[in-house]
Amino acid sequence: MSDLFWPGDERAGDAMSETALLQAMVRVEAAWLATLADAGIAETTADLGGLVGEADVPAIAADAESAANPVLPLLALIRERLGVRDEQAASWLHRGLTSQDTLDTAIVLCLRDVGTVVRRELEHQVGALVDLTERHRNDVMAGRTLGRHAVPVTFGLKSAGWLQGVLDAVDDIAATERLPAQLGGAAGTLAASTALASDAGLGDAARSAQGLAMQCASRLGLAARPPWHTNRAPITRVGDALVGCTDAWGHIANDVLSLSRPEVGEVTEPAGRGASSTMPHKQNPVLSTLIRRAALAAPTDAARLHLAAADTHDERPTGGWHLEWATLRSLARHAVTASSQTTELLTGLHVDAARMRTNAEGAADALLSERDAFSSKTGPVDSYLGATDLVIGAALDRARRMQTR
Amino acid sequence: MSDLFWPGDERAGDAMSETALLQAMVRVEAAWLATLADAGIAETTADLGGLVGEADVPAIAADAESAANPVLPLLALIRERLGVRDEQAASWLHRGLTSQDTLDTAIVLCLRDVGTVVRRELEHQVGALVDLTERHRNDVMAGRTLGRHAVPVTFGLKSAGWLQGVLDAVDDIAATERLPAQLGGAAGTLAASTALASDAGLGDAARSAQGLAMQCASRLGLAARPPWHTNRAPITRVGDALVGCTDAWGHIANDVLSLSRPEVGEVTEPAGRGASSTMPHKQNPVLSTLIRRAALAAPTDAARLHLAAADTHDERPTGGWHLEWATLRSLARHAVTASSQTTELLTGLHVDAARMRTNAEGAADALLSERDAFSSKTGPVDSYLGATDLVIGAALDRARRMQTR
Amino acid sequence: MSDLFWPGDERAGDAMSETALLQAMVRVEAAWLATLADAGIAETTADLGGLVGEADVPAIAADAESAANPVLPLLALIRERLGVRDEQAASWLHRGLTSQDTLDTAIVLCLRDVGTVVRRELEHQVGALVDLTERHRNDVMAGRTLGRHAVPVTFGLKSAGWLQGVLDAVDDIAATERLPAQLGGAAGTLAASTALASDAGLGDAARSAQGLAMQCASRLGLAARPPWHTNRAPITRVGDALVGCTDAWGHIANDVLSLSRPEVGEVTEPAGRGASSTMPHKQNPVLSTLIRRAALAAPTDAARLHLAAADTHDERPTGGWHLEWATLRSLARHAVTASSQTTELLTGLHVDAARMRTNAEGAADALLSERDAFSSKTGPVDSYLGATDLVIGAALDRARRMQTR
Amino acid sequence: MSDLFWPGDERAGDAMSETALLQAMVRVEAAWLATLADAGIAETTADLGGLVGEADVPAIAADAESAANPVLPLLALIRERLGVRDEQAASWLHRGLTSQDTLDTAIVLCLRDVGTVVRRELEHQVGALVDLTERHRNDVMAGRTLGRHAVPVTFGLKSAGWLQGVLDAVDDIAATERLPAQLGGAAGTLAASTALASDAGLGDAARSAQGLAMQCASRLGLAARPPWHTNRAPITRVGDALVGCTDAWGHIANDVLSLSRPEVGEVTEPAGRGASSTMPHKQNPVLSTLIRRAALAAPTDAARLHLAAADTHDERPTGGWHLEWATLRSLARHAVTASSQTTELLTGLHVDAARMRTNAEGAADALLSERDAFSSKTGPVDSYLGATDLVIGAALDRARRMQTR
Repeated sequence: MSDLFWPGDERAGDAMSETALLQAMVRVEAAWLATLADAGIAETTADLGGLVGEADVPAIAADAESAANPVLPLLALIRERLGVRDEQAASWLHRGLTSQDTLDTAIVLCLRDVGTVVRRELEHQVGALVDLTERHRNDVMAGRTLGRHAVPVTFGLKSAGWLQGVLDAVDDIAATERLPAQLGGAAGTLAASTALASDAGLGDAARSAQGLAMQCASRLGLAARPPWHTNRAPITRVGDALVGCTDAWGHIANDVLSLSRPEVGEVTEPAGRGASSTMPHKQNPVLSTLIRRAALAAPTDAARLHLAAADTHDERPTGGWHLEWATLRSLARHAVTASSQTTELLTGLHVDAARMRTNAEGAADALLSERDAFSSKTGPVDSYLGATDLVIGAALDRARRMQTR
Repeated sequence: MSDLFWPGDERAGDAMSETALLQAMVRVEAAWLATLADAGIAETTADLGGLVGEADVPAIAADAESAANPVLPLLALIRERLGVRDEQAASWLHRGLTSQDTLDTAIVLCLRDVGTVVRRELEHQVGALVDLTERHRNDVMAGRTLGRHAVPVTFGLKSAGWLQGVLDAVDDIAATERLPAQLGGAAGTLAASTALASDAGLGDAARSAQGLAMQCASRLGLAARPPWHTNRAPITRVGDALVGCTDAWGHIANDVLSLSRPEVGEVTEPAGRGASSTMPHKQNPVLSTLIRRAALAAPTDAARLHLAAADTHDERPTGGWHLEWATLRSLARHAVTASSQTTELLTGLHVDAARMRTNAEGAADALLSERDAFSSKTGPVDSYLGATDLVIGAALDRARRMQTR
Repeated sequence: MSDLFWPGDERAGDAMSETALLQAMVRVEAAWLATLADAGIAETTADLGGLVGEADVPAIAADAESAANPVLPLLALIRERLGVRDEQAASWLHRGLTSQDTLDTAIVLCLRDVGTVVRRELEHQVGALVDLTERHRNDVMAGRTLGRHAVPVTFGLKSAGWLQGVLDAVDDIAATERLPAQLGGAAGTLAASTALASDAGLGDAARSAQGLAMQCASRLGLAARPPWHTNRAPITRVGDALVGCTDAWGHIANDVLSLSRPEVGEVTEPAGRGASSTMPHKQNPVLSTLIRRAALAAPTDAARLHLAAADTHDERPTGGWHLEWATLRSLARHAVTASSQTTELLTGLHVDAARMRTNAEGAADALLSERDAFSSKTGPVDSYLGATDLVIGAALDRARRMQTR
Repeated sequence: MSDLFWPGDERAGDAMSETALLQAMVRVEAAWLATLADAGIAETTADLGGLVGEADVPAIAADAESAANPVLPLLALIRERLGVRDEQAASWLHRGLTSQDTLDTAIVLCLRDVGTVVRRELEHQVGALVDLTERHRNDVMAGRTLGRHAVPVTFGLKSAGWLQGVLDAVDDIAATERLPAQLGGAAGTLAASTALASDAGLGDAARSAQGLAMQCASRLGLAARPPWHTNRAPITRVGDALVGCTDAWGHIANDVLSLSRPEVGEVTEPAGRGASSTMPHKQNPVLSTLIRRAALAAPTDAARLHLAAADTHDERPTGGWHLEWATLRSLARHAVTASSQTTELLTGLHVDAARMRTNAEGAADALLSERDAFSSKTGPVDSYLGATDLVIGAALDRARRMQTR
């Protein structure tokens, strides 16, 4: 996949793509069918693998409008193709479920995959930032607040600050690790499953139905949770985690944009990108630009998920739920793309420590004016770094705790 | 095109699709090349039609990251393919332009097409609403405020209210009709064009360059405007117009959702949609649900365009501009989809005037309690309709003025 | 008024303050009462001036929850105080109106005042920008795209770009000039007014009621429009206009922030602000910082108004309408504050043309690399300004047309 | 406090008010001064209580613009008043801190108080919901999806769903319990503190400075964390938690709005509110309306905090930080108000179980159509409740675990 409207999108690969969603829906139906069979409710199960694929996406998507979601046309297609060779299995498909069960659980499977990729990128970033921080721990540079020279810092302190942000994001992304399956039936009562269990002669039919939901969740590696058709915290928390990530990356991108201006010249993006269509001399900071773009976009995507959550009503809402899917797709793909771009940016970032020192020494009067105002101490910019090294040490310690977890 | 994550998307056809954007960029380059040739600057022009197409989208998209926009890889491809048969024309391609010229103007061409489609749908809706209003001008029903019975209205009054909203949207969408081309060169100075004109021996080189921009705009049917690389009102106004449309449609969808609840039963969506995956009796209000979804999504898309506008700086911003493209794509395709769904909803809406009357008469005590509080007048619900008919007339008059414009 | 959470808020004075809203509501009730009296419906009118004021705000606000809006407690207070001296007038108060009539029309009166102030500030800004542009029309400086040196521009071109943005905002703010009154009664049918007209023996009662609404609107200097309780374009258009303004100001602030960095040093904010709590040397760019803050905030406020518009249903919505008031207050006060800050910024901006030239000449290799790539021409940075002067001229012409309108 | 633009605001009392912020800033300065004195750095400390108060808010707010934050004018006022009686203490005030230290830590103190109040309300809600759920555990009603009759549920199941949402919010609000102090000096290096420690002859000056920060944090009951001037996760997490709360309350409000429509009539808001200005019969659902309002507003407030976080750069951003304060104020006060309204709504909600049963039985054909499609079982609506009781039990268990934690 790639996207002419979102350069870099191909980095997200198949994450939360149409095909990925399709396959995830099939996985959910297959897991449920297998669960019914294991419990002795369905007489048979079936391998749904290979029945539908990428080529079916347009037709299913186009038929999705009639039911306001793609589950119905997907089921029709599977039933048709499976029915040819195994009519009985086809007849057991989806029994006990509702469309929202299939779709919510499939979305959750996709989000878990997204979380895995983002988490891995964050770990690479932690590694790169530990390196940057250790390497430049003592490289003095001008600290700048509101765009003005403030007091001296080191580049190690700056990258330790980036590191803190990335470590916060690592904490946040854990929200994607224990996501719950959605398996409740039409209104979250498991009524159809209970009736199936009863018809099959299982003992406590209601408890059996509850057991089916737990087994199916477990089969998919997901947590069990009472039906959450109209309690959307599992979704909004993922959104909040992803925007927490883009916040951290946006911060880094902004600093690179600011420090790589020719008048400052303290860092440079990795070589090999950034050509202009007409100006041969230019090396545009394209990674930072594209990362910043994602960081500006993500907050309103996360907000849209909260709006959807706030708009739920009755046993399934009219519009709020339907709003989540494309929002999650954008948020997730943009986050994965930005995660990869940030790793590349940090791994190949060129830091010009000499220029930093020159700039800082040139601005020494300003950078030391705070000290001059209250202390009789004098000395070069390096002599007013306070507890910089300890602050860096704390960030590195936190990184190491994360790395050995 | 279709979208598994946004049921109904296929209604938007090729509007603001990747292919449409690609073709629009080619159109811009072709128009500029022809303009250079007409002016005697380029020795030759060339037909760029058919050189690149849908099949090239993935490669161009994937190469777009290196320059943070797709213009460079598109040019490389055209130059390569055109160069085989006409090296000279290939060498004149894009000379005098900057990437943002090509992309902004291409986006504007796509938005104009979107505006045309939306405008046509709005006109259909006006027609359908005039019909509905005339037909039900005197069909009394309960007016409801904050979900409670208020005073009597007629369904004609309600549909006249919908009509007012659609007419407001017609006014708003005019913003897409005189969109400007973007043709300014690297920093909006037309410096390269001026140098080209000078090299070609044209009289007043700067004025000639300005003339090139005006001629190219005219060739594309676009307005001329001084470079607006960092003045994004042309973009935000389109966004505001589109969200103005979805506001009007969302209002209609909400009313249909409210009035079609089984406990109310006063209107029903057109038949033929709304099946459930498990409950055979259901006819879900899917059009309204999907329209409402779009109306909840659009406000933050329009906000994102304003954020991009507010974030511009220098002669081209780092991220804000890049944020616009996918945002406009979502906003535009969702609007086109919702426009078509709303037309279908209004054209086929089933109105149960008898049920309305029954409901209103059943609630007469409540609906007339305002009158009872200050007047000794009595009479059925029809006798307390005040100036309803005049209000309806005003809306119908406004519609007719629009229709004959 | 001032706001510890929004430094600069005192610049907004009484615009859209609690007191302003209170007084506007009183004005609406007074205008309606006078209209009823003029028409011979009410036996008497009354001067409501001075009956309620700033001191009553807390009590009215606290009582507003019970009806979900402040109209009811305001009426109770006026009736009580007016009733002492003129029971008859008190008894005619608000008859024929609904809460939303009073509040919507009062909000509209406040917004009109906001529009007037903003428009005046925009005009000051146009003046300041015409001056800046003329003064620095030929002062060469580096053009920068994506933060990199691009081609030469002049500061006059940059300020002409700011001017274009401000002129776009002038066009947008016209949306506040012909705002409509809201006068429709409980469900927009003018039923109570019609009954009053009928009881008073007026000829065509419905037409008389419509006439009352028109006369009252005219008395308040507002446009007449059929009831728009659930058609919120009059509100969203004001929101879109205000965010259009903050977009233009944000753009200016960003450029000042970028160009006033010590490493660039090309412009400086007006002296007299920007002290640091600990660093005596600093002059922080506080105006630009605070303007940028407003530009980042406004887009989601405007979005919230669209959400409210999209959420309307029945004859009055449950929540959407109530969401508008505080949103408009924030958006409007922030816009007024930023308008004043921008005028101050532009009027006192210090432009260092010599530093601009030095910077540009120092970067000549980069700034001329585009030309070097295709032309054999040589010459200093001033010789590659293309049509800069013509672009400036077009902006100045547009400003003059606006100024003499 | 109250707010004419936000009915119900007085419920938030002093939470995140201007006065509360002022007092919190004073608390931070006092704690820092005491910490300096304890460490033997300052020769003296001073009680800052009573030096400034509510009456000083307007002047401090108005002076805040010059430094773009209120800390400088607050310090000037304290120094002036304290200096009269203790010049030495006055001279030690704020030494080692930067404005952002004072303001961030003060905001955090306010947010902690907000968290405490919200948490208490959530606990009341859990209690009320456990009661409702137990009382109506077996009261059958129609389940509704997309506004249509789906399958039978019980009101206990619905309130158990509300309970799950509230319990999710309880989990989220924990984010406000261990908030960190911000104490890093001008650029997060503790340089001034270190110099002070060194001047005072303390052993390892850097470590001493770090110790000062930890002691001051502890004195305020806050967590210690390395400076987070440009890492805003501590702020965005509070925002995400608060919008998580309003999501849960919005869901409840929507259901009450839907079920209390006269055509449904299954629940009614607590009596005593909801009068209309003209229609004596009405009891508008004002609590739900105002709660829904807050739920629609909160998502974009939380988004604005993320935007601020994503916009940080250098050692302190230009605008992003300044955007947080008013955003947090709105978000927090609205959340506190809505928390109290929701408690009142739930505590006094009138549930009409008989009407629920009548409605459900009247819709039995629809509610049982799912079962009819696959099972030969028959029986009344109560006989198709599946595992409803178990799902309710799981929610009640979760509530009890929370209650005994």
